[in-house]
Amino acid sequence: MKEVTLKQIAENLGISITTVSKALKDYKDVSKATKAAVKAEAKRLNFTPNSFAVNLRTKESKTVGLIIPEVVHHFFSSVINGIIDKAEKKGYLVIILQSNESYKLEKKQVELLISKRVDGIMISMANTTVDVGHLNHIRDLKIPLVMFDKISKLVACSKVIINDRMAAYEATKHLIDSGCKRIAHFRGALLPQNSIDRFLGYKKALEDHGLTFDPALVYICENVDYDNGRSAALQLIADGHKIDGLFAITDMAAAGAITVFKERNINVPDDISVMGFSNWFLSQAITPALSTVDQPGYEMGKKSFKLLYKEMRAKREDRYLEPVIRVLETKIIKRQSTK
Amino acid sequence: MKEVTLKQIAENLGISITTVSKALKDYKDVSKATKAAVKAEAKRLNFTPNSFAVNLRTKESKTVGLIIPEVVHHFFSSVINGIIDKAEKKGYLVIILQSNESYKLEKKQVELLISKRVDGIMISMANTTVDVGHLNHIRDLKIPLVMFDKISKLVACSKVIINDRMAAYEATKHLIDSGCKRIAHFRGALLPQNSIDRFLGYKKALEDHGLTFDPALVYICENVDYDNGRSAALQLIADGHKIDGLFAITDMAAAGAITVFKERNINVPDDISVMGFSNWFLSQAITPALSTVDQPGYEMGKKSFKLLYKEMRAKREDRYLEPVIRVLETKIIKRQSTK
Repeated sequence: MKEVTLKQIAENLGISITTVSKALKDYKDVSKATKAAVKAEAKRLNFTPNSFAVNLRTKESKTVGLIIPEVVHHFFSSVINGIIDKAEKKGYLVIILQSNESYKLEKKQVELLISKRVDGIMISMANTTVDVGHLNHIRDLKIPLVMFDKISKLVACSKVIINDRMAAYEATKHLIDSGCKRIAHFRGALLPQNSIDRFLGYKKALEDHGLTFDPALVYICENVDYDNGRSAALQLIADGHKIDGLFAITDMAAAGAITVFKERNINVPDDISVMGFSNWFLSQAITPALSTVDQPGYEMGKKSFKLLYKEMRAKREDRYLEPVIRVLETKIIKRQSTK
Repeated sequence: MKEVTLKQIAENLGISITTVSKALKDYKDVSKATKAAVKAEAKRLNFTPNSFAVNLRTKESKTVGLIIPEVVHHFFSSVINGIIDKAEKKGYLVIILQSNESYKLEKKQVELLISKRVDGIMISMANTTVDVGHLNHIRDLKIPLVMFDKISKLVACSKVIINDRMAAYEATKHLIDSGCKRIAHFRGALLPQNSIDRFLGYKKALEDHGLTFDPALVYICENVDYDNGRSAALQLIADGHKIDGLFAITDMAAAGAITVFKERNINVPDDISVMGFSNWFLSQAITPALSTVDQPGYEMGKKSFKLLYKEMRAKREDRYLEPVIRVLETKIIKRQSTK
């Protein structure tokens, strides 16, 4: 296709390119008749203004970048939902990249977004990210940055999080309150902050309620998924541990464990009470319906964009904005998997 | 932040802007020493080339647009996954927009993507879209376009689909083969092609196997979700219909129905066999594990980008490419909800 340009419209109408440009932008010093003629000709030629380029006056691209560990995940897709809903209302487009939990990929994607001149970046870190130089580089360039869910304390930017430690404490306390005395924990990998925090919340709840913390009852679910939950439950049974409660780091891992317990005729919750984390939307559809911690993904997405938007506005107006940390509320959802 | 420009680097080094630009692009007529000096200065000043603008030589933005009805949906998030995986490998960024099943929003989003000068557009239509003028407009502008899953026969572009009618026929046949004689169908809304096709496949399977089609056994699940499945099952029971098989348009609707059956002490599959559609990744975690039709979302995403990439290349080389339709294979997954 031959690209239609301002020049062509100008030539066809016998007027200057500047007039065409002004007419399309509704400048006051162009007559109504000329505007109408330019617009009609532009339409006839299927002319599309080049608005992908950075706006030369405002220096904005009206595009923001979002890097998340994985797209196929109820929590993260809820976050995406919140972000694009809010962004659309404010006239921003969202470029979504998936780090697949890889530090290398995440670093490359940050560079890519910077080179694309996005107006701001939102990120939830990969589990494997330890060095945060690439994130601080975003700050050095004064590009608005918001981190959410999986964040690093070493980056001084605005953040939206939940209090994982307190939520895990409450989840474990719910098991203790319902009578559990020997509670196992299926935790995530050793590195991610939320995996550490949920483990610490579990441990603290045991200690505060006079129950012995037994490291042998803690199993690692590397990918915190359904299959990990299955494997950990099978291992727990093979290890011969007698437990009456289980707090799993995710609903997926909890669902995997429940399937194994059912296969082995272990009754949930009569023999073992099971508590998940995140209130994945169909935790109510599994049997027994899963008790869990509600983690507000959509809310987190909305709030993250809102903070980013404030920063982008401040930058436009050349104001400095102190980074803030927003902690969203979680709550215990009691269903049938706990007594 | 004061924006660092080529001009500034040129001034600092006492050379021309053209030389700076050439040095950064590794032109041969610039000496190695100059290149090194320019790159060092650019790095020192945190200079980022403006690559978000459309590349003036290739007229490409290396960005594509994706419009889908909803992000929080296992099938669609699998498609997104396939698309961004493939796009990243080819050096393209993906802007994702969510139509929320609204024709109005979808139309606006198409215009937005066109104005942003994306190199290509992929779309799965909203259920409410009847007029496809906005999609044909994309074709008129010679912008590469690929439709997937929810497509329109009225748009002459490349498409990636499954054979919904045949898949639904096979699903219903699976129920018939296992001994079901009176099979209900929870269908989607009246408009979407996949809802129509799955209904027709169900009807044809009954007729081909000597079973009477009874319109009273067909219930509409407007949003094809868990709650719709619950409501339809409750209505079916209230209507006093005796059935021994159910084919639901989605796994979600099937899961909702199963929950109701369990609440009413109707045994699945002994009293009623239930068949879902799409092989949503945790259909294996509900009880009984759901028999379903596997719908290859990730594959569909990969294939969609692949077709779009071919079209973008053809456009670059000024070749015409005949639209193609790729039909992906589905298969019956037998689990415990059918005999």
